[in-house]
Amino acid sequence: MRRRSTAQPGEERHGRVKQAVHQIYVATHGKGLYEFTREIETWVLGQQASTGLLTVFCQHTSASLVIQENADPDVIADLADFFTRLVPEDTSLYRHTAEGPDDMTSHIRSALTQTQLSIPIHKGALALGTWQGVYLFEHRERPHRRGVILHLLMD
Amino acid sequence: MRRRSTAQPGEERHGRVKQAVHQIYVATHGKGLYEFTREIETWVLGQQASTGLLTVFCQHTSASLVIQENADPDVIADLADFFTRLVPEDTSLYRHTAEGPDDMTSHIRSALTQTQLSIPIHKGALALGTWQGVYLFEHRERPHRRGVILHLLMD
Amino acid sequence: MRRRSTAQPGEERHGRVKQAVHQIYVATHGKGLYEFTREIETWVLGQQASTGLLTVFCQHTSASLVIQENADPDVIADLADFFTRLVPEDTSLYRHTAEGPDDMTSHIRSALTQTQLSIPIHKGALALGTWQGVYLFEHRERPHRRGVILHLLMD
Repeated sequence: MRRRSTAQPGEERHGRVKQAVHQIYVATHGKGLYEFTREIETWVLGQQASTGLLTVFCQHTSASLVIQENADPDVIADLADFFTRLVPEDTSLYRHTAEGPDDMTSHIRSALTQTQLSIPIHKGALALGTWQGVYLFEHRERPHRRGVILHLLMD
Repeated sequence: MRRRSTAQPGEERHGRVKQAVHQIYVATHGKGLYEFTREIETWVLGQQASTGLLTVFCQHTSASLVIQENADPDVIADLADFFTRLVPEDTSLYRHTAEGPDDMTSHIRSALTQTQLSIPIHKGALALGTWQGVYLFEHRERPHRRGVILHLLMD
Repeated sequence: MRRRSTAQPGEERHGRVKQAVHQIYVATHGKGLYEFTREIETWVLGQQASTGLLTVFCQHTSASLVIQENADPDVIADLADFFTRLVPEDTSLYRHTAEGPDDMTSHIRSALTQTQLSIPIHKGALALGTWQGVYLFEHRERPHRRGVILHLLMD
């Protein structure tokens, strides 16, 4: 997905901030990164926020969040490979192994990335850079439905 | 600690957002993860927030924050071991060694985890997943009293 | 830069939250950490926020943010070295190599650190700890001008 070029926000003041909360689910089928920028943008646009702050919160400890380049899919594949090398699925290294070799590694990979991201909103759009996309990083092999909370502060 | 199952937030709008700030201290006695979810929840409940955003901020560069599973204590032990392997306490690798072998490693471990976490509040409770707990990750061997700021936006 | 000692915030409630947004640019000339705490503080002071939440958002996937010690410059040099060892510039490891050996490593280093930081404001100042500074972590060798969005919620 391409993003419109970054707005140049000036300084502004606004009153009467209000909130909205929404839950979405990201369906995953194996380890890797799943972009869901569009789902977020659709909800934010529907809220008609002009200026605000969107917080994205992942309700799991075996999946996490990252903002990454969404132009070349090789970036996402290389990133996934790096984490596989960094956190080996070698059960002899871990005590917590009852759920399989991808269980403890999931918790570690989550700790090394993000459980939460907050993104400013300016002129009615997420202030993401040109190449930034929001990804759920699934760390487990089996399919999951991952709960993500969207919290919006806006005027 | 078990958490009630996750609420399913619908879309909502609220007005009149207000703020509250509170400082807590987490006492540590050696490297490892110290859960303080209950202290946070107690304060948030006392504020009677219905919808909101809690920001937890660690005022140190040799201790950090993570959200992790709080069901099996082995997860926390394995996570601590992983960081010990990843960031070796080998002073020949570092310039900044005056305070001992666990000093520079503390700064690196902090950079790899979080200094700040923001957690949405929905229906009067933190929107944590069923197994998520909030931990202070102490990276130094000697006992410390770690300052953590809680900032709440709420209606 | 030294910071005044940490304020001890009590509990407080405020009304009428408002927002401000501002864009800054951090000029970089090669890999490493660039402190910009003062630029942030200057803007926050100019907004005359008493209590608030500042969100710092980096609009790039090959540069990131960290809060680190700003007392001993050796910390920053050691941190930079650690990331060079952790994420090797060996193009045989990556598919995404068209832009050079420091391209894919930049995305990985960004995923391991932060794209966004939120810092509470109390009594008119950022609630940073005594030794905490805010850094842009440049992961590319060539000079860049990095866009950073500041979003402020305040009363």
